[in-house]
Amino acid sequence: MSIFNVNPVTVDDYRRLARRKLPRFLFDYLDGGANAEATLAANVNDFDRYRLKQRVMRNVDNIDTSTKLAGFDAAMPVALAPVGMAGMYARRGETQGARAADAQGIPFTCSTLGICSVEEITAATGKPIWFQLYMLRDRDVIQSLLKRAEAAGVTTLLFTVDLPLPGMRLRDYRNGMIGTNLCSKLSKTAQLAYSPRWIMDVGIKGKPHTIGNLSEVVPDPDDLNEYKAFIDSQFDTSVTWEDIAWLRSIWPGKLIIKGVMEVEDAQAAVNAGADGVVVSNHGGRQLDSVASSITKLPAIAQAVGDQCEVYIDSGIRSGIDVVKAVALGAQGVLIGRPWIYAMAGAGEQGVKDLLATFQNEIRTAMALMGVNSLAELTPELLERV
Amino acid sequence: MSIFNVNPVTVDDYRRLARRKLPRFLFDYLDGGANAEATLAANVNDFDRYRLKQRVMRNVDNIDTSTKLAGFDAAMPVALAPVGMAGMYARRGETQGARAADAQGIPFTCSTLGICSVEEITAATGKPIWFQLYMLRDRDVIQSLLKRAEAAGVTTLLFTVDLPLPGMRLRDYRNGMIGTNLCSKLSKTAQLAYSPRWIMDVGIKGKPHTIGNLSEVVPDPDDLNEYKAFIDSQFDTSVTWEDIAWLRSIWPGKLIIKGVMEVEDAQAAVNAGADGVVVSNHGGRQLDSVASSITKLPAIAQAVGDQCEVYIDSGIRSGIDVVKAVALGAQGVLIGRPWIYAMAGAGEQGVKDLLATFQNEIRTAMALMGVNSLAELTPELLERV
Amino acid sequence: MSIFNVNPVTVDDYRRLARRKLPRFLFDYLDGGANAEATLAANVNDFDRYRLKQRVMRNVDNIDTSTKLAGFDAAMPVALAPVGMAGMYARRGETQGARAADAQGIPFTCSTLGICSVEEITAATGKPIWFQLYMLRDRDVIQSLLKRAEAAGVTTLLFTVDLPLPGMRLRDYRNGMIGTNLCSKLSKTAQLAYSPRWIMDVGIKGKPHTIGNLSEVVPDPDDLNEYKAFIDSQFDTSVTWEDIAWLRSIWPGKLIIKGVMEVEDAQAAVNAGADGVVVSNHGGRQLDSVASSITKLPAIAQAVGDQCEVYIDSGIRSGIDVVKAVALGAQGVLIGRPWIYAMAGAGEQGVKDLLATFQNEIRTAMALMGVNSLAELTPELLERV
Amino acid sequence: MSIFNVNPVTVDDYRRLARRKLPRFLFDYLDGGANAEATLAANVNDFDRYRLKQRVMRNVDNIDTSTKLAGFDAAMPVALAPVGMAGMYARRGETQGARAADAQGIPFTCSTLGICSVEEITAATGKPIWFQLYMLRDRDVIQSLLKRAEAAGVTTLLFTVDLPLPGMRLRDYRNGMIGTNLCSKLSKTAQLAYSPRWIMDVGIKGKPHTIGNLSEVVPDPDDLNEYKAFIDSQFDTSVTWEDIAWLRSIWPGKLIIKGVMEVEDAQAAVNAGADGVVVSNHGGRQLDSVASSITKLPAIAQAVGDQCEVYIDSGIRSGIDVVKAVALGAQGVLIGRPWIYAMAGAGEQGVKDLLATFQNEIRTAMALMGVNSLAELTPELLERV
Ligand SMILES: Cc1cc2nc3c(=O)[nH]c(=O)nc-3n(C[C@H](O)[C@H](O)[C@H](O)COP(=O)(O)O)c2cc1C
Ligand SMILES: Cc1cc2nc3c(=O)[nH]c(=O)nc-3n(C[C@H](O)[C@H](O)[C@H](O)COP(=O)(O)O)c2cc1C
Ligand SMILES: Cc1cc2nc3c(=O)[nH]c(=O)nc-3n(C[C@H](O)[C@H](O)[C@H](O)COP(=O)(O)O)c2cc1C
Ligand SMILES: Cc1cc2nc3c(=O)[nH]c(=O)nc-3n(C[C@H](O)[C@H](O)[C@H](O)COP(=O)(O)O)c2cc1C
Repeated sequence: MSIFNVNPVTVDDYRRLARRKLPRFLFDYLDGGANAEATLAANVNDFDRYRLKQRVMRNVDNIDTSTKLAGFDAAMPVALAPVGMAGMYARRGETQGARAADAQGIPFTCSTLGICSVEEITAATGKPIWFQLYMLRDRDVIQSLLKRAEAAGVTTLLFTVDLPLPGMRLRDYRNGMIGTNLCSKLSKTAQLAYSPRWIMDVGIKGKPHTIGNLSEVVPDPDDLNEYKAFIDSQFDTSVTWEDIAWLRSIWPGKLIIKGVMEVEDAQAAVNAGADGVVVSNHGGRQLDSVASSITKLPAIAQAVGDQCEVYIDSGIRSGIDVVKAVALGAQGVLIGRPWIYAMAGAGEQGVKDLLATFQNEIRTAMALMGVNSLAELTPELLERV
Repeated sequence: MSIFNVNPVTVDDYRRLARRKLPRFLFDYLDGGANAEATLAANVNDFDRYRLKQRVMRNVDNIDTSTKLAGFDAAMPVALAPVGMAGMYARRGETQGARAADAQGIPFTCSTLGICSVEEITAATGKPIWFQLYMLRDRDVIQSLLKRAEAAGVTTLLFTVDLPLPGMRLRDYRNGMIGTNLCSKLSKTAQLAYSPRWIMDVGIKGKPHTIGNLSEVVPDPDDLNEYKAFIDSQFDTSVTWEDIAWLRSIWPGKLIIKGVMEVEDAQAAVNAGADGVVVSNHGGRQLDSVASSITKLPAIAQAVGDQCEVYIDSGIRSGIDVVKAVALGAQGVLIGRPWIYAMAGAGEQGVKDLLATFQNEIRTAMALMGVNSLAELTPELLERV
Repeated sequence: MSIFNVNPVTVDDYRRLARRKLPRFLFDYLDGGANAEATLAANVNDFDRYRLKQRVMRNVDNIDTSTKLAGFDAAMPVALAPVGMAGMYARRGETQGARAADAQGIPFTCSTLGICSVEEITAATGKPIWFQLYMLRDRDVIQSLLKRAEAAGVTTLLFTVDLPLPGMRLRDYRNGMIGTNLCSKLSKTAQLAYSPRWIMDVGIKGKPHTIGNLSEVVPDPDDLNEYKAFIDSQFDTSVTWEDIAWLRSIWPGKLIIKGVMEVEDAQAAVNAGADGVVVSNHGGRQLDSVASSITKLPAIAQAVGDQCEVYIDSGIRSGIDVVKAVALGAQGVLIGRPWIYAMAGAGEQGVKDLLATFQNEIRTAMALMGVNSLAELTPELLERV
Repeated sequence: MSIFNVNPVTVDDYRRLARRKLPRFLFDYLDGGANAEATLAANVNDFDRYRLKQRVMRNVDNIDTSTKLAGFDAAMPVALAPVGMAGMYARRGETQGARAADAQGIPFTCSTLGICSVEEITAATGKPIWFQLYMLRDRDVIQSLLKRAEAAGVTTLLFTVDLPLPGMRLRDYRNGMIGTNLCSKLSKTAQLAYSPRWIMDVGIKGKPHTIGNLSEVVPDPDDLNEYKAFIDSQFDTSVTWEDIAWLRSIWPGKLIIKGVMEVEDAQAAVNAGADGVVVSNHGGRQLDSVASSITKLPAIAQAVGDQCEVYIDSGIRSGIDVVKAVALGAQGVLIGRPWIYAMAGAGEQGVKDLLATFQNEIRTAMALMGVNSLAELTPELLERV
């Protein structure tokens, strides 16, 4: 980047800012993916396989990017994805994300493993948010979490199914974030020493760094080793579709299954009573070498699109990617890393600006494709290369 | 580039010279494309998908590269594309381009948004030029523009249809060219300070920097923010093919529709009375992620080639690209960035030299393909890879 | 690699450590392949052509990575490949490899051309190992080698068929390892001078550097020229499948043919009485420009998979690669360079850690693919890109 | 390249040596290709599209790389291609090349435009060589050249058909080799000043630098401008297959047509009485963007292989490339740049060493493919990727 590039615009611009500000292990935890990061790369690159069609001389004076996402009146087909420990990337990060989402008129999703509790987040905007859940071995914790979410006004539950156990994100081992040997400890100290601004702003003033929704259960989430130990012990590898049916029976709101990559599983989700599915490989953080989510979207939208809402995440980096996803059958998209990069790099305003850029990109692409509404974005307006 | 490379030859050589001379934001405005610049890259790279056939021992003693372009007797099937604000890239740039085109025997196109007015340009050579038009909300301005063009001897009108609104050229945001915050202003000042030669030659001696054809309408085009504001307010997103029919009815000369990428739209242009179409994505500056224009040419030439003249622009960088376009059905090509790079890097002589190289490349390729006339360049002489 | 990367994790991490520690010619001999190293690269890259399928909400509480490899109860479907002169890469390297393999519960293969003899290796662990054999012109040597192996408790013989003559590993010529001119000698001296730690630890304390199994036959294996001369004179280019039949008749244990790339040859191996084949191009060290072994596996597994065990080596770099090989029909895989990099870079512990990572990767991938046993890994769980 | 790489082995190694020794414009003239050098790159890279099959346990004790090339008993299916002005790359370069070819038992081809005359070259070895001819407008010169060649013992004539006019090798313009402006002259002087060794060894002691075979016709070939002017005036763009028939009638020896890329032209060559054709695009120096010669070989070998001998050149860089060409139907290959790089970089010995490496590579590949003779190399032993 030239020294003359003074205003961040794209996700990648914010990524660069975030890299400069964050301690290395936090940046790596955010930025990295599982194993060789093949899926991480494919998620982004495979959007290039689709080309938009340019159509001209159609009256495009009434472009409307708004839509309904699981009942939410959204200004555009985008929601902020659940990101664990967002509050480590900016002071009380989840509240910043929620305020930015609210300002731009899109849903915010609270992670099971966020720093701020669901109550702290909804208090920040006074608006309903979405809530993401992992299945824990202790079902009482689940029940009480859902009660709290309902009480806080959550209408939509994203249940994440692609994390029976944590993926192998090798950067975390390599940089010493996971690991308790001497090298790991020294490295972590050095990495912190390189980020004085973060230490003051987030490390000290952003406390407490407990996991808000589970503060009684997980002791000290500053330490990724504890965090991982908790997941290893509490995350339930024996969950099946029957547990979804149980969830369905106790949760009154919308239920969306996040982490589906095969038609068969999407169908099973519908059969278990889901209102929607998110085609997702967890941003390439779980099974490495699985296909990109965009290449999996069309078949799933085709198969269950008339029975439930189909969402997608993993690799969306611009409004043009959003247009492609919608044209391939998605009701909307979730973005994960993009909003964290923007928040870590430029705060709440950064998230707002990035979302505004997304919306501009959607609007401009629609104009040049000759459509006024999202409903007109059909597969015929794409080409595969 | 080695220090021993002393003579610029290719478009890329001139591009390097231009980069050195121009203030950064002007270079970026010229060099960049919309969003991720995927189409910008594809425009150039996709020419590589076609291979020429080498044929030997055919008498090639009478090679003739000349042709007719919308009635213009051209020395080769190439025209200079309309480029807004060319006069910011060299002193009274449009007149330099027109003189170079005239010297090499090809058409020059005056942009709606040029620095020099159509009258100033035709005065420079005393020869007819082409004129490019954008639809403005104020149809009176349109009518008076067309009258002026006709009076100045313009015979051919290129009506540009792919700019209902300006594309998102992110470099302009990033480098502060668009944007009024403090960073943007400081950056712009710094960029100018790095280009003393340009300041004297173009910035001062090249004045006035108003938009010649619209000097009463747009106040201060030095500032891209004003320029963009004008486009935002005046450019008409509600234009349809019916407006083309209206244009057709008031313009007596040739009418060519620039910015068509789909067969359906090419057919609509013909139905509206166009004498020609330009297959173009505006050099990758409008809808990013649309296909390259060269991949769209064959189907359009096939569909409407016998009803009107088919032109192409976007990504042509050598005489070999021209040969490919002609073999795929183009009557001729337009080049945009190439002539501006050459002019900014090496003045009027640079444009002439570059055009001479293009013609040499066309002639040499024809000789080695065993043909003497452009008419012999058929799709059978290409291979797809 | 950032300075904050303190813990090696992947094969590539260990490779970097090895490069720093080893004299250049030894590293090159290990790291390089034949000629232009096209096959070397393809071996690794072609694993990317296969994608894993993510399947969710299947109970994966009982994942088991264990299997039987030629009768050996292995903790996972991986064995250490035979590597000539492993003892030049770490002090008495073969014994370190054997101990690490034993600790992780997988087979170790002793090369014909190892530094440690088969007796020294089995003494290190007290456990049976595998033995690899090249055909020598002197069949008496063969017979006595097999007797020694049997006596040392070897149960499985890998007979290598892809080395009728040594491949052209050009790095060895280029860096002077092969070659007796002055430049070669000076270069070798300089390379040693750059590796003081290796000189002390392996060069001096790791002696003797004779080829353990053939110490009476090859005089001084420190010098690759002697080594190559021995191979040139003793290796038998006239071997045919009839010699395999003879081997079969004198060897009572399991017989596995290593170096088969065509279905026809795999069938011939079965016909000659082999219990298994290894689909292998010798890690890209013999015939350059041959296909990668992973692309050859499916057809061979299909053709002879029900008549013998099918193994694969060449290019396996992670547990995910192992999962792919198994899904495509392999009973197990051999890894060559990976364990030498780990041993040269981080000693016996390095090999153990790397193997533990492989097993974790296999287990995690199985969980996210929704399977509990290796038998469930079928071609339907892969996609080709 | 590491400092420890002391012995050159591959073509690329010699290329690096040559670059260091030669004045820049001479290196560029050798190394470069036409226009964007797309064909230059494709010539080399497209060999990667073919993979060899590894076959084992076939008795390969009698490998024979020898063959007949247009009646010449050659040690391997390789000949040195005609290279104009080879004597500018090493002192009396053509004689060095001829001696090296003789030592390795392969044919040497004298170019029309060599520094040494055909008589000087044959005198150097006392052996017959091949002679290459361009058609000149002055047919008397042609007749006298053929008489001299016959008298000097030439048995085989390569008639080059792909140079009706010289290709556009842009490096020559860029670096000032072609061009008479001040920049060009200064640059040339500076380039020479950087190569003192070459000035003494070749520039001074290698004189005279006239074109031996045409010394009365072209005045001063040191100057590429003169050289180009001569070609422009003397090279005949009106040549057709009828002129070949005339040549055929006056030349008693073998006649091979060099520069055929289409089946139709190969057939025409046969019809005109040719004994062979060379599938060639002149090493990517003439028509840029034409296909690589290796992709054109199979169809031509298929079509005319039983009526004449089929050769190939352009892009061959190793013995493995030779094996591929032979398997695809070539009787033999010509190499151009490789022998000049070797000679410029390491003298006559360099050429000999490179040729020995080629032969080793052919022999090793044959052994690992399980064949003993070139005749066994059939298309079935290749795979296309
Ligand atoms: C640092 C980080 C933490 C995440 N934490 C959670 C989480 O707690 N729950 C969840 O369902 N997904 C989580 N995800 C996955 C995201 O919800 C989303 O699926 C993914 O980030 C989408 O890919 P993208 O980052 O390419 O947009 C996390 C992702 C990241 C990058
Ligand atoms: C800086 C710049 C300004 C342009 N201005 C105009 C314009 O005013 N009107 C128009 O129709 N096209 C305009 N174009 C598009 C060109 O006419 C042409 O379509 C495009 O440059 C072709 O692509 P190329 O640059 O790859 O040759 C402009 C292009 C550039 C690069
Ligand atoms: C340095 C080195 C030495 C080798 N020596 C032998 C050997 O003595 N016998 C043998 O059968 N294979 C030998 N191999 C080949 C390996 O057994 C195995 O086929 C190959 O390394 C697998 O490829 P990989 O290195 O990509 O895992 C050797 C490989 C290397 C790298
Ligand atoms: C510097 C140079 C000069 C050449 N001069 C001649 C020539 O005088 N006559 C001719 O028929 N071919 C000439 N060629 C072409 C070669 O004969 C041959 O076709 C080409 O070099 C093959 O490609 P390669 O360089 O990739 O092996 C020349 C090639 C080079 C590189």
